[in-house]
Amino acid sequence: MTSSDQNNSVNEEPNTGTKTFCNSVLIEDTFAEAFDGWMASILITASKRDLAEIAALSAVGFGTSVIGCGAEAGISDYVIPQKSPDGRSGVTILLVHPDKKQLKEQVIERVAECILTAPTTAVFNGLPDAPEKIPIKIHYFGDGFEYQTTVKDRKVWAIPVMGGEFLIEEEIGIVNGVAGGNFFIMGVTQSTALAAAQAAVEAVLSLDETICSFPGGVVSSGSKVGSLKYKFMKATTNHLFCPTLRDRISGSRVPDGVRAIYEIVIDGTSYDVVRQAMHDGIHAACSVNGIVKISAGNYDGKLGPHKFYLRDIV
Amino acid sequence: MTSSDQNNSVNEEPNTGTKTFCNSVLIEDTFAEAFDGWMASILITASKRDLAEIAALSAVGFGTSVIGCGAEAGISDYVIPQKSPDGRSGVTILLVHPDKKQLKEQVIERVAECILTAPTTAVFNGLPDAPEKIPIKIHYFGDGFEYQTTVKDRKVWAIPVMGGEFLIEEEIGIVNGVAGGNFFIMGVTQSTALAAAQAAVEAVLSLDETICSFPGGVVSSGSKVGSLKYKFMKATTNHLFCPTLRDRISGSRVPDGVRAIYEIVIDGTSYDVVRQAMHDGIHAACSVNGIVKISAGNYDGKLGPHKFYLRDIV
Amino acid sequence: MTSSDQNNSVNEEPNTGTKTFCNSVLIEDTFAEAFDGWMASILITASKRDLAEIAALSAVGFGTSVIGCGAEAGISDYVIPQKSPDGRSGVTILLVHPDKKQLKEQVIERVAECILTAPTTAVFNGLPDAPEKIPIKIHYFGDGFEYQTTVKDRKVWAIPVMGGEFLIEEEIGIVNGVAGGNFFIMGVTQSTALAAAQAAVEAVLSLDETICSFPGGVVSSGSKVGSLKYKFMKATTNHLFCPTLRDRISGSRVPDGVRAIYEIVIDGTSYDVVRQAMHDGIHAACSVNGIVKISAGNYDGKLGPHKFYLRDIV
Amino acid sequence: MTSSDQNNSVNEEPNTGTKTFCNSVLIEDTFAEAFDGWMASILITASKRDLAEIAALSAVGFGTSVIGCGAEAGISDYVIPQKSPDGRSGVTILLVHPDKKQLKEQVIERVAECILTAPTTAVFNGLPDAPEKIPIKIHYFGDGFEYQTTVKDRKVWAIPVMGGEFLIEEEIGIVNGVAGGNFFIMGVTQSTALAAAQAAVEAVLSLDETICSFPGGVVSSGSKVGSLKYKFMKATTNHLFCPTLRDRISGSRVPDGVRAIYEIVIDGTSYDVVRQAMHDGIHAACSVNGIVKISAGNYDGKLGPHKFYLRDIV
Repeated sequence: MTSSDQNNSVNEEPNTGTKTFCNSVLIEDTFAEAFDGWMASILITASKRDLAEIAALSAVGFGTSVIGCGAEAGISDYVIPQKSPDGRSGVTILLVHPDKKQLKEQVIERVAECILTAPTTAVFNGLPDAPEKIPIKIHYFGDGFEYQTTVKDRKVWAIPVMGGEFLIEEEIGIVNGVAGGNFFIMGVTQSTALAAAQAAVEAVLSLDETICSFPGGVVSSGSKVGSLKYKFMKATTNHLFCPTLRDRISGSRVPDGVRAIYEIVIDGTSYDVVRQAMHDGIHAACSVNGIVKISAGNYDGKLGPHKFYLRDIV
Repeated sequence: MTSSDQNNSVNEEPNTGTKTFCNSVLIEDTFAEAFDGWMASILITASKRDLAEIAALSAVGFGTSVIGCGAEAGISDYVIPQKSPDGRSGVTILLVHPDKKQLKEQVIERVAECILTAPTTAVFNGLPDAPEKIPIKIHYFGDGFEYQTTVKDRKVWAIPVMGGEFLIEEEIGIVNGVAGGNFFIMGVTQSTALAAAQAAVEAVLSLDETICSFPGGVVSSGSKVGSLKYKFMKATTNHLFCPTLRDRISGSRVPDGVRAIYEIVIDGTSYDVVRQAMHDGIHAACSVNGIVKISAGNYDGKLGPHKFYLRDIV
Repeated sequence: MTSSDQNNSVNEEPNTGTKTFCNSVLIEDTFAEAFDGWMASILITASKRDLAEIAALSAVGFGTSVIGCGAEAGISDYVIPQKSPDGRSGVTILLVHPDKKQLKEQVIERVAECILTAPTTAVFNGLPDAPEKIPIKIHYFGDGFEYQTTVKDRKVWAIPVMGGEFLIEEEIGIVNGVAGGNFFIMGVTQSTALAAAQAAVEAVLSLDETICSFPGGVVSSGSKVGSLKYKFMKATTNHLFCPTLRDRISGSRVPDGVRAIYEIVIDGTSYDVVRQAMHDGIHAACSVNGIVKISAGNYDGKLGPHKFYLRDIV
Repeated sequence: MTSSDQNNSVNEEPNTGTKTFCNSVLIEDTFAEAFDGWMASILITASKRDLAEIAALSAVGFGTSVIGCGAEAGISDYVIPQKSPDGRSGVTILLVHPDKKQLKEQVIERVAECILTAPTTAVFNGLPDAPEKIPIKIHYFGDGFEYQTTVKDRKVWAIPVMGGEFLIEEEIGIVNGVAGGNFFIMGVTQSTALAAAQAAVEAVLSLDETICSFPGGVVSSGSKVGSLKYKFMKATTNHLFCPTLRDRISGSRVPDGVRAIYEIVIDGTSYDVVRQAMHDGIHAACSVNGIVKISAGNYDGKLGPHKFYLRDIV
């Protein structure tokens, strides 16, 4: 760890000279910058847990970032039979978009294409206490043969399908949560950084109302806004954090000895749950040997309304 | 099995009176109707097979049907380290769209969002012998720091990323294949029909150049074009094949005793491989006790150029 | 369901003529007979959950029944990083044997062969509040290089190994629990009975202190004591419950229309948890269409001290 | 890498001074020493691949080393429906023991306890061309209700069970193979060494007739014969290869900068397949960044009849 790292810090706060460590890993004096995002929560049940999971994985696929996908999406929770509305195993997913209308469209499309079509599934509102709900009128698919009924206290539509009946609660709770909580894990080898990242993801996903929308929860290719060279590109590789470029560019923020950096990106239903997820994830990452430093991504505080200072979180 | 089933047959061919059976299961005298579809094949390798699979699942997600998704997509093959270009485990996916330009856009988006971002992955052309290729210029993400190199005989770009370097072969082979090969499995209970459907999917996916784009490969909610009741709906439940409606409507095609029908939909790189997949899948399904009948979906031959007669296939 | 089924009932209680149903499935008026069993609980943590699970699966393997295996064994719980002693993901296993000394030997052997050898694992007492503990002296493997330390409030040995250090809490809590709680699921097809059995296992394993030691939790080949024909056999197929023999033998207890019967066998740390598991499992099984009857296995009350009457449980 | 490493080499061959490298990783000039072992191969099929795999995992569990387990055991191959005797998905396992009679006992016990009991399974001889076969008389379990039949060209017994019928080919082919082929992977962090070990296992298991019997295929706690301190111990930690002891003992064979060493142990049906597996595994391991050295374990050539010189293999 050299003093030059600190010079590259984007943190606007005065540097008091006191360094923060977590399990001997240096915590950079910076902050994660995050955004508002509308979040819909859908509980998928099925006759077996793996069937619910298969439908969930299909529904959250191609959903890493709203930059290039229709929504950000991921599995947020597993529900045991004893605690689900219909007594079957369940998987809860979160779908996230800053725009409420586009979120609704995504919920409808992903439910219709990926859950309605999946064997033995049913759909319930995953946030029954949310004050705001979006209606998704899937029941028209029943072509007039559908009917209303109840499952425990949930009002559902029963839609005749080839596989039997598809039950769906059509009022889906939404909340305005926080998207883009994040931290960077810097390791001496790629395997080490990845092991720490995976441990972090396990800790983050242990919380019920958070998702990591990237594949396996880990981002390998962090980006910066715009481009140095290609004016037509909206985002390009975050070259200051690319280990292979460390000795070829000026201003690299890759510490000495670091060969890989992985980013964990967290969407959650509230500021507090994202903060808790960052805390748990950083601690899990720092328990792995060979991690040199934890940092975070921001835009100098100019874009997102939410800031998570690492030194306060750890 | 009642004679009335035959009366409901959509098969235009003269009924010779000879019934076809596979392992004692009646094979309806009808055909599957399928479409042309452009197919791109991408080989994803990673440091471990599960990492390649995680990226693949993300990339093929929200990809069941081009009716509501950007592409149809699925895993087509697993590649052992000894046979992959970079000596690592790999997973091959197929992306399918009838329109070549839209297919290209989907390949670019899904690679950029779901594979480039995934840890340790690399991308290779999954159809190196295909005469036609689409170029996907992901390397601009490197912002000028990217460079060209080779992996075995493959020309690839190396793009610096936070996790190390992302290698990608940017010429992706495409072929004009066959989309929508299908058959219906009718069982005495939902579990039985599902077990047969899953056995069928295992057999279909054992072939290297086929995918089943629906969740777990099984369709629970087959649809018909248009609607009887809701004029604004483009497609609604295939009510003639809904077991719960059997005794409430006229013309139901659900045989006596059938409580669930699952559809297997197959996209493949050629007519022959789809035909082989239908053969293998039907035989696997019919090995499960409690299957009453196999049928298939068509549009009276008016929409798709490819027909697969079940009696010829079995 | 014919009246002859009731005549075959082994239940010694007077038949009051009132039948019990669960979700329209007949619950036979009989009881499960279970045994005392010493149970040791081991919490395995690792740097990732899948590594803990791999070690656990190895340690509980070849552990279906004490008739032919050294112990009965299974995974009883998953522990999130925030709740495990060392902040890592964990998997808890139960090892069961009626004899305390043989249980101790099995704990030692299985820890030494299957967990000590597995990468990144640590071992903790899974029942820290149990009044009785067995000491397992694995630390001699350290050949004098081992040392004592603590992880949170746990006193552990640190043993140098090639992969780093293996931490183990050597006082393993044991309790005298109940082994052999069981019920039979009778379905109209094999797939249906299996689907119900798998749903039952999911419900049973949602409880923290129960295991289903058979493969996937489901027994396909229930047995009776002794043999009609082969005097050298201690146990042979439970022919009265074999569907394929129904019409060939007298006294078959297979109801009309049943083609498969699966047994769920449950070991748990107390009578109450096994009773709850049977309740939850039976309800889950009966939610699957095509289940005809639930029964249970006993020895006329002559062998095991614990009885679970189905009609009271449901 | 210091010259002192070479001084610690156990290799008896003259040191020519030429060092061997694989992908820049130093290959120590030593050899793996392996043993003869009888190997039985069992093909388990089931209605779905995961059911076959669940039975296989149970049957190969508690089977890491014959030092403390009844047999060494692992999954050797996956068989697609089109290539299995009964047209269903299959998993092939190898069971290994130096003593033919004890191997037979283990095959019988593990088949009876873990495969016969598992839903929908059947058992076939995994080595139909082996000149030597062991008979396993499981059919007595049928209590006289069993009968002989054929599945394709295989002569099997059909045993009535509660779940239906269990089919088993009772002549199981055995060969005298090679057990204990091995190599050591030395990495700069635990995560790196583990990532390389897992890549090696994937490559090894891509071959059809090899197994890695330890959990996940990776050994974390290699041992030496006997003990320096505890005379009652038959085997203790291989202290010369423990990274945490490097600076506390004389003669450590841990290179500078190495924090973890994992061992891959391979059993295979022939010398050639084990040799190929070592080649493929070492190459896969050396493709991971942060691996410093590959070594192997032997007993100065005094115990096992088979030697695998690393420099010849790579």
